Amino acid sequence: MHTLQQHSLRQGALALLLAAGGLTPALGATPTTDPLPSWNEGAAKRAILDYVARVSDEASPDHVPTPERIAVFDNDGTLWPEYPVPFQAAFAVDRLRARAAAEPTLAADPMVKALLAGDLAPLMAGDRHEGLLHVIGLTHAGLTVEEFQAAVAAWMESAEHPRFKRRYDRLTYQPMQELLAFLRANGFKTWIVSGGGADFMRVWSERVYGIPPEQVIGTTGRTRFELREDGPALVKTLDHLFVDDKAGKPAAIHQFLGRRPLACFGNSDGDLAMLQYTTVGNPRPALGVIVHHTDGDREYAYDAHPKGTGRLIEALAEAPRRGWKVVDMKRDWADVFGGDPGEARKSP
Amino acid sequence: MHTLQQHSLRQGALALLLAAGGLTPALGATPTTDPLPSWNEGAAKRAILDYVARVSDEASPDHVPTPERIAVFDNDGTLWPEYPVPFQAAFAVDRLRARAAAEPTLAADPMVKALLAGDLAPLMAGDRHEGLLHVIGLTHAGLTVEEFQAAVAAWMESAEHPRFKRRYDRLTYQPMQELLAFLRANGFKTWIVSGGGADFMRVWSERVYGIPPEQVIGTTGRTRFELREDGPALVKTLDHLFVDDKAGKPAAIHQFLGRRPLACFGNSDGDLAMLQYTTVGNPRPALGVIVHHTDGDREYAYDAHPKGTGRLIEALAEAPRRGWKVVDMKRDWADVFGGDPGEARKSP
Repeated sequence: MHTLQQHSLRQGALALLLAAGGLTPALGATPTTDPLPSWNEGAAKRAILDYVARVSDEASPDHVPTPERIAVFDNDGTLWPEYPVPFQAAFAVDRLRARAAAEPTLAADPMVKALLAGDLAPLMAGDRHEGLLHVIGLTHAGLTVEEFQAAVAAWMESAEHPRFKRRYDRLTYQPMQELLAFLRANGFKTWIVSGGGADFMRVWSERVYGIPPEQVIGTTGRTRFELREDGPALVKTLDHLFVDDKAGKPAAIHQFLGRRPLACFGNSDGDLAMLQYTTVGNPRPALGVIVHHTDGDREYAYDAHPKGTGRLIEALAEAPRRGWKVVDMKRDWADVFGGDPGEARKSP
Repeated sequence: MHTLQQHSLRQGALALLLAAGGLTPALGATPTTDPLPSWNEGAAKRAILDYVARVSDEASPDHVPTPERIAVFDNDGTLWPEYPVPFQAAFAVDRLRARAAAEPTLAADPMVKALLAGDLAPLMAGDRHEGLLHVIGLTHAGLTVEEFQAAVAAWMESAEHPRFKRRYDRLTYQPMQELLAFLRANGFKTWIVSGGGADFMRVWSERVYGIPPEQVIGTTGRTRFELREDGPALVKTLDHLFVDDKAGKPAAIHQFLGRRPLACFGNSDGDLAMLQYTTVGNPRPALGVIVHHTDGDREYAYDAHPKGTGRLIEALAEAPRRGWKVVDMKRDWADVFGGDPGEARKSP
């Protein structure tokens, strides 16, 4: 054991040494490589690079010790699209469609009827996401965590986004993927703080974003522990539902992390409280960033869209006063989804 | 920035290389040093050492990748004492004592009266810790997180355990401290999963156990976010109270970690569900350990004590069938609190 362990430690150390010498491009921060190649040169990119340099540089007066380099990211609309509905809602509708034929009671539910007829409006109705939560209740509760995880994984393998004709997990924003990697290469711990379901995101967060399940904060219901014949089970419920949105985001960050973040990335008024919590009066040099959906050609342009998720009015108005950086997707991003740009279709 | 960063990367890599060569004793797993010197030779110590070797050794059929090496520890009674009352209850009583003179309404509360008269029985009454929660409500709710953290830090500086005449944070179990360090040196991530308050523990968990706040799961109430003149505040409440005990422990582990742990350390029936969740039917080679309070001379002997926390009847009965290792404090620990053993006093 000891020999092997020492061997692998030595290998790891050698790899680090090589990376530090710039011989491999594995760490995003090597001097000759642009760590954010999908970002156009401009104020947003410059502000992010400068900020990371300042807090990472031990000689800088703004240097921050690594344990406090916590970056929190909203997911829907910040790391991947949320328009016209969050991807998790697409998953729920697909589940309903598959079950409705065999379950007449389910098929008779007025919202299920509307959804299966192609009317997504009721899904996005309600100030507190009542529509979404109704559908989440119908499709998520009662399953064990393992059953639910298997369903999410199978859906992710097979489902395709109607406009972009790609698997949903291939629709993450390439510039944000680069940013995640760049922050981690500079000692940041990256967290997701999303209104999406924690159980939904954790199935693929590590594979897709390099973010392990224990750094994913999301909407949760309490699970019920049962010791069954074949082992322990955790059954999903909507009891003690915690919706990780708006003022719930700082509360959840405190509950899970117990520290104030140093950097916060969001795209909507649902992220306003989290942006305030991160940056206002923070004795550390904090960073707030808003991803502004301005690109109807390559993605969507919808900031003041009055319904559903993704509404961005208050946070945008507050940005100049707070010093938050606004990323204009159209202007600031050279690439949106990575890979074949021809796959993106015109907005309907 | 780049030069400095490379410099510090290179330094880190060199340190790793040296450690891997066995030139420094910093990593607990170097061959010549006993990583658990405060443990007597015996079945418990052997089982723990063997287990860690098996899952860490890449050549072993029981090898487990590092991201899944998650060890969860109960705190009260597992990492430090909980008798005759959990230390957090002592903190609450001290707070009440300080406030009662100036607050007649508080002083008139029947439980406050009893407590200040030295009667701790009502505090530990109730199957669901009703007594404790009443006092927690009186002393914790309404403060901002920062005010509460300052109060905990000040108390920890000044308060002393009535029997052992030491600061409470100097009463952690030395053998368990060694175990935490040993597990981390072998790629485990160590988490606390305790019925104690998360806000209470996180003030000192990193300093005392080397466990950062984001790896501390405890009892929590929802905080209320307020943007005040001088910045954001999170106000403690008892809303959506989550008591991290019994079946709540697996639910909390799932909520926070999103993975099943590999190793679980507890001391009471409050840890039974967490031990089951970790070990029963786990496809990985899991480890369950119970710290059994058998040492009335150096600590306490109280397993079947019918009231309060720390009751250990069901989990002890189930241990042989589940293969859980029972640590007999009297027999298995050469030292309890570390340092001067003369400081420990006879049990009353």
